[in-house]
Amino acid sequence: MASTERSDAMTTPLRVAMIGYGFMGAAHSQAWRTAPRFFSLPRPVELAVVVGRNAAAVAQAAERWGWAQSATDWRDVIARDDIDIVDIVTPGDSHAEIAIAALAAGKHVMCEKPLANTVAEAEEMADAAAAAATRGVRAMVGFTYRRVPAITLMRDLIADGRIGAVHQVRAAYRQDWLVDPQMPLGWRLQKELAGSGALGDIGAHAIDTAQFVTGRRIASVSGTLQTIVPRRPVLGEGSGLSGTAGEGYGDVTVDDVALFSARLDTGALGSFEATRFATGRKNQLTVEVSGTEGALAFDLESLNELRFFDRNAPEPLQGFTRILVTEPPHPYLAAWWPPGHLLGYEHAFSHQVKDFVEGIAAGTDPHGTFAEGLDVQRVLGAVEASAARESAWVAVGDNA
Amino acid sequence: MASTERSDAMTTPLRVAMIGYGFMGAAHSQAWRTAPRFFSLPRPVELAVVVGRNAAAVAQAAERWGWAQSATDWRDVIARDDIDIVDIVTPGDSHAEIAIAALAAGKHVMCEKPLANTVAEAEEMADAAAAAATRGVRAMVGFTYRRVPAITLMRDLIADGRIGAVHQVRAAYRQDWLVDPQMPLGWRLQKELAGSGALGDIGAHAIDTAQFVTGRRIASVSGTLQTIVPRRPVLGEGSGLSGTAGEGYGDVTVDDVALFSARLDTGALGSFEATRFATGRKNQLTVEVSGTEGALAFDLESLNELRFFDRNAPEPLQGFTRILVTEPPHPYLAAWWPPGHLLGYEHAFSHQVKDFVEGIAAGTDPHGTFAEGLDVQRVLGAVEASAARESAWVAVGDNA
Amino acid sequence: MASTERSDAMTTPLRVAMIGYGFMGAAHSQAWRTAPRFFSLPRPVELAVVVGRNAAAVAQAAERWGWAQSATDWRDVIARDDIDIVDIVTPGDSHAEIAIAALAAGKHVMCEKPLANTVAEAEEMADAAAAAATRGVRAMVGFTYRRVPAITLMRDLIADGRIGAVHQVRAAYRQDWLVDPQMPLGWRLQKELAGSGALGDIGAHAIDTAQFVTGRRIASVSGTLQTIVPRRPVLGEGSGLSGTAGEGYGDVTVDDVALFSARLDTGALGSFEATRFATGRKNQLTVEVSGTEGALAFDLESLNELRFFDRNAPEPLQGFTRILVTEPPHPYLAAWWPPGHLLGYEHAFSHQVKDFVEGIAAGTDPHGTFAEGLDVQRVLGAVEASAARESAWVAVGDNA
Amino acid sequence: MASTERSDAMTTPLRVAMIGYGFMGAAHSQAWRTAPRFFSLPRPVELAVVVGRNAAAVAQAAERWGWAQSATDWRDVIARDDIDIVDIVTPGDSHAEIAIAALAAGKHVMCEKPLANTVAEAEEMADAAAAAATRGVRAMVGFTYRRVPAITLMRDLIADGRIGAVHQVRAAYRQDWLVDPQMPLGWRLQKELAGSGALGDIGAHAIDTAQFVTGRRIASVSGTLQTIVPRRPVLGEGSGLSGTAGEGYGDVTVDDVALFSARLDTGALGSFEATRFATGRKNQLTVEVSGTEGALAFDLESLNELRFFDRNAPEPLQGFTRILVTEPPHPYLAAWWPPGHLLGYEHAFSHQVKDFVEGIAAGTDPHGTFAEGLDVQRVLGAVEASAARESAWVAVGDNA
Repeated sequence: MASTERSDAMTTPLRVAMIGYGFMGAAHSQAWRTAPRFFSLPRPVELAVVVGRNAAAVAQAAERWGWAQSATDWRDVIARDDIDIVDIVTPGDSHAEIAIAALAAGKHVMCEKPLANTVAEAEEMADAAAAAATRGVRAMVGFTYRRVPAITLMRDLIADGRIGAVHQVRAAYRQDWLVDPQMPLGWRLQKELAGSGALGDIGAHAIDTAQFVTGRRIASVSGTLQTIVPRRPVLGEGSGLSGTAGEGYGDVTVDDVALFSARLDTGALGSFEATRFATGRKNQLTVEVSGTEGALAFDLESLNELRFFDRNAPEPLQGFTRILVTEPPHPYLAAWWPPGHLLGYEHAFSHQVKDFVEGIAAGTDPHGTFAEGLDVQRVLGAVEASAARESAWVAVGDNA
Repeated sequence: MASTERSDAMTTPLRVAMIGYGFMGAAHSQAWRTAPRFFSLPRPVELAVVVGRNAAAVAQAAERWGWAQSATDWRDVIARDDIDIVDIVTPGDSHAEIAIAALAAGKHVMCEKPLANTVAEAEEMADAAAAAATRGVRAMVGFTYRRVPAITLMRDLIADGRIGAVHQVRAAYRQDWLVDPQMPLGWRLQKELAGSGALGDIGAHAIDTAQFVTGRRIASVSGTLQTIVPRRPVLGEGSGLSGTAGEGYGDVTVDDVALFSARLDTGALGSFEATRFATGRKNQLTVEVSGTEGALAFDLESLNELRFFDRNAPEPLQGFTRILVTEPPHPYLAAWWPPGHLLGYEHAFSHQVKDFVEGIAAGTDPHGTFAEGLDVQRVLGAVEASAARESAWVAVGDNA
Repeated sequence: MASTERSDAMTTPLRVAMIGYGFMGAAHSQAWRTAPRFFSLPRPVELAVVVGRNAAAVAQAAERWGWAQSATDWRDVIARDDIDIVDIVTPGDSHAEIAIAALAAGKHVMCEKPLANTVAEAEEMADAAAAAATRGVRAMVGFTYRRVPAITLMRDLIADGRIGAVHQVRAAYRQDWLVDPQMPLGWRLQKELAGSGALGDIGAHAIDTAQFVTGRRIASVSGTLQTIVPRRPVLGEGSGLSGTAGEGYGDVTVDDVALFSARLDTGALGSFEATRFATGRKNQLTVEVSGTEGALAFDLESLNELRFFDRNAPEPLQGFTRILVTEPPHPYLAAWWPPGHLLGYEHAFSHQVKDFVEGIAAGTDPHGTFAEGLDVQRVLGAVEASAARESAWVAVGDNA
Repeated sequence: MASTERSDAMTTPLRVAMIGYGFMGAAHSQAWRTAPRFFSLPRPVELAVVVGRNAAAVAQAAERWGWAQSATDWRDVIARDDIDIVDIVTPGDSHAEIAIAALAAGKHVMCEKPLANTVAEAEEMADAAAAAATRGVRAMVGFTYRRVPAITLMRDLIADGRIGAVHQVRAAYRQDWLVDPQMPLGWRLQKELAGSGALGDIGAHAIDTAQFVTGRRIASVSGTLQTIVPRRPVLGEGSGLSGTAGEGYGDVTVDDVALFSARLDTGALGSFEATRFATGRKNQLTVEVSGTEGALAFDLESLNELRFFDRNAPEPLQGFTRILVTEPPHPYLAAWWPPGHLLGYEHAFSHQVKDFVEGIAAGTDPHGTFAEGLDVQRVLGAVEASAARESAWVAVGDNA
């Protein structure tokens, strides 16, 4: 099989095809281009081809983001012998089809989150990834925030027992871009394209981060969904967050806000929120984990910082320590700048590329597997099921 | 009726009897003593008598906290002609009996929160207060945080339309004093004395603050209660938060953590938490309200500050403004120190005394009425009812 | 001698006379009244008499602030046998005369800062205090911020070696009440009354705090003074910070801003600022001390907090810990509220009363001695001398 | 002249030669590679050649950082016809020679800060740049922090009059990497290579930032320099911040700490600090500017934030607004990510490339000219002169 042969020849570049080229495409392109400069990757990478339906637009994207070629049919690209990695940055409704086809074709797959729009799709994808793994083909879902150094450090400290056994988790992802009632009806507000609203788009990050840092699964949930502004102007020009209003109104078919309580498999309690109506919060993911020996808190508005409370410190000196996660002993940091120099949003994408390429070379899946993506999808499904049952508790997995 | 006559004679002191003398008694005593110094009250106040069951201990409390006399039977004290105000700072199980008797005796009543341990008791109390009001007798419940200047300012700004219509409220009251599994089984952990645990003791503050600042009522809730450490050492010596462990273990019969979602009567969403397992959070009440035009956020760990986000500010200048609520135009502040001098926890108690005495003089109930205390009690009851029904939504008032 | 006899009889109250009754008088009154309630003082205190030149105004102050009597001639009061303590809260130009007379009369003296308006006066006062001490008479200067718990803790941690040897100190006291060019020419802006401007009024706090927490003296300084707005409206009605502009303009004869560098007696460097032109800073004293093993930082805008950096913590966990100085093991805190309850500006005055009364009972001067007040005065003098010599370095003490 | 012809042909790439390849080389390489992806530059750029003395090492750097070629003699490279831009990232002692030669050869020059090690060198360089400008050749000094969006916004708001006339400036650059007395004697601690210590390396940033945001020049200074640890282990292996100690000790010949006061040409006061002994501060540049109408404050530890105080806001709403400088209307931000996504340290280098390339295309020098670099050098010189004269005030420019 092609990819196995290639891994024998460590100097052969891994050739990447990226399917899609929106805002996420820009972030991924920057990562593919940057990671090899700052990290000593086991194999070189090549930005081989970017794929999109609009030939002119995708050609322009290739030029702008530095891809050698562009193409319009992802099936053709997947069929090519000279492609090693397929990077999927399309909306969620196409993830399953592309990813499963690519894995079947022996391509390593990186897929943006959420893994899919439904649990059923996610299950097929996880099965496909498991099957591909037996053939040495890797799959990974892009829960990028796992690789923000402060969040990776949070995970490490919890795994090391620094806060003891976890009693409670709080995670909230809060934005405000729907406060304006004239914000038009883009694809993210349509259930058939986006799967769900705040819940799936940003709540998925809150769920994954909570599961990642604690190393535990959410076992059951009690949730509420609400659509605060149920009708919005249809989309005129543009797309996504920069689209402008056209004439007429249409129904918002996804949630604006999701609130849910959770129980982890250990019995620990979780409190979750995802909202696009948190006025003044542009893009704030907060996570706080409280344990028997300490606590850890993170805020994406200060992404280079982690707060740590140590119950075992001398009593008069206890308090939350603001760790600037910018030092050489911190995760991923040694590769970047001298002490005290901050990283930005995009760096986590480079860390993702690094871990993925290292996984390919080592023959192991880096964390953020399709199985973990499926875990998140099941939680999303359970929240929707609970919301449909007047918020009664639903066990994750029981909601099919 | 005695109290009406007295209000004719504005120079006659209001004589106060305080029932109970724990930590809250210290705070109230300091307020009765301090408020008349800093505010121009319409009538003087006298710290006449403090009441407790243990004669020696209550005599010592009278000496320490500056009460002219001590007594052991609250019924005797209520029967006295020379008492105008009864200030109740006992545990919640005795609030109803004392308050109703005092109101019947024509005494103005200030009662610590929560108003009662059950909705039924709270209803009786609110009825008694309504009846007393027709006779010129005032009643007030001690939701002291309403009178922290930053919270009063929050209420004022919302009432003035500064953040427009409210979309979401978040309120959490988080402490960590039960993280230690050896903390003994004091009265606050026993349902028959305390009514409920984190929910009623600190969750009540979160609920009241949310209702107060928004000016709206919680209409329905979906809640979860959990007792993380179900058995603890029985109490040996001491009491309350400073008690020490004795021999043997007993059952904790109240919640350690309460999580609930809410819908206000406007349909706006609320997210609430009360916990004693938030490691590192000593006494943190946080409230954030998001509206169509802005947002406001408060954190009791920084009680002199209020954060305000104004969507109508010029776009490049938008952000949360940290208002130091220490200036003369801010609520209650003109009476205290020059600009920029911070107040502490106890000052809100003086504000409460001021508003209560002014209400007595003016013949109107200051906010924080028994009816509002009942509102909170009904929300607490609804959360318990929802928790008992697998977190299904329960309308407030429907949970008898 | 009277005071010695009294200290034998520990139940006899200490009778206090307060000279002056402005804003500082309110703070001191509150402290004399409050400290005995929260701390177990070795002797009771009585608010015996308040003294001021305007008979009607001082009588009103007595009523308002709870003093048994009022009087208009401080000499008469000092001559009384039934007065044990003289508390001086007048402007700086009268400190020396009153304090020296009171000490000579065998009264314990608490004197507001700065100790005096000139080094010569301060020297006389320190001599008088030293002489009085041999007769069991105590003297103390009101550098109140020393007894803000977070600052006391800072001193304790440095004394315990927690940050090792001190390399650098930064202290700034910044206010903005002179930014308005129409703020009138009150006594604080006139050299003959106030001695100096920002330097002596608030810079004195920065100097004293730096010397207090490090336990070291400033040995030499290089300083600059500037008067940003040299002419202001003369004072019309009112006084102090609440005075209003009258007709005509007069010269500001003190500094608006003082900047100076310093060398401690250890050679460590200091950087100091006192300003009334720091727009948006109402009353901000910041102090940061950097040492071989760690650092400590304080900000009066968050007066219940202390930041501590520990170089000996595990490297990936290093950072500034925000200690909420509200816990029982913290200085003065056990007497107040449960964990996590904040203190305000005025509490440090109660701590000052407590330490002073304990010093009287124990026969020892509490820290904040007149000798320490003189130290500060000498630094102020040296800064002025340096400013007059084009900022050339001046040794403290060499500037007579 | 070659460069003029090229600017006619806007599609011809600008070919860059970078002299030096240390930590700054990495940052510049990333910027040359990234800026064209996110900004629509008027001309493409090519990473043509990187130059260093060690042939093997520079070849490796070319490979790692993406330069087409490597070379060992900068004179040869400057002589090449196919080079348009020379980017100088060597230590300061070689800046003058290389920059002057490159400008003479008609190359556009970007030069790292500080411009030079002496005022005399800087003057020659500024003269060379002025002469080159008449021939259409551009020069720019790399005061990168000017292009951190929050600092650019600070400049814009001051220029727009948002804080009125400036009364005071405070700027401090604080690091702690010399607190360890075993940190070896690298080139940055040797006067002949580095020019000066904390003053020139990081103090230069504080000076430039203060001058940039206020739009004013520092006219005079009173300064102090101190070397806290005067002898250190000689350098063993490695270099720069990652070097390790060898055997024996040598003298530190530069300052560890620089403190100085300044007067701007408007008479406004400045307070400056540069230190490598601020324990716990890894890389903290703070700038606060106070004006008649408001204030602005920046902290590099939170580089995406700017604090703004508006004296013209309604009084009860005044406070410092924390602007997250991550929105499309903010400087440079529209090119990056959606609202609320943070940038890191390195992004300012891309902004620098963008402005430089646009300047080349437009035929105008972008801000950060060699004349401005000379201004900073003159301030550095004046601080050293003042320090040598017991901190007496020295006019900038009078210190030759």
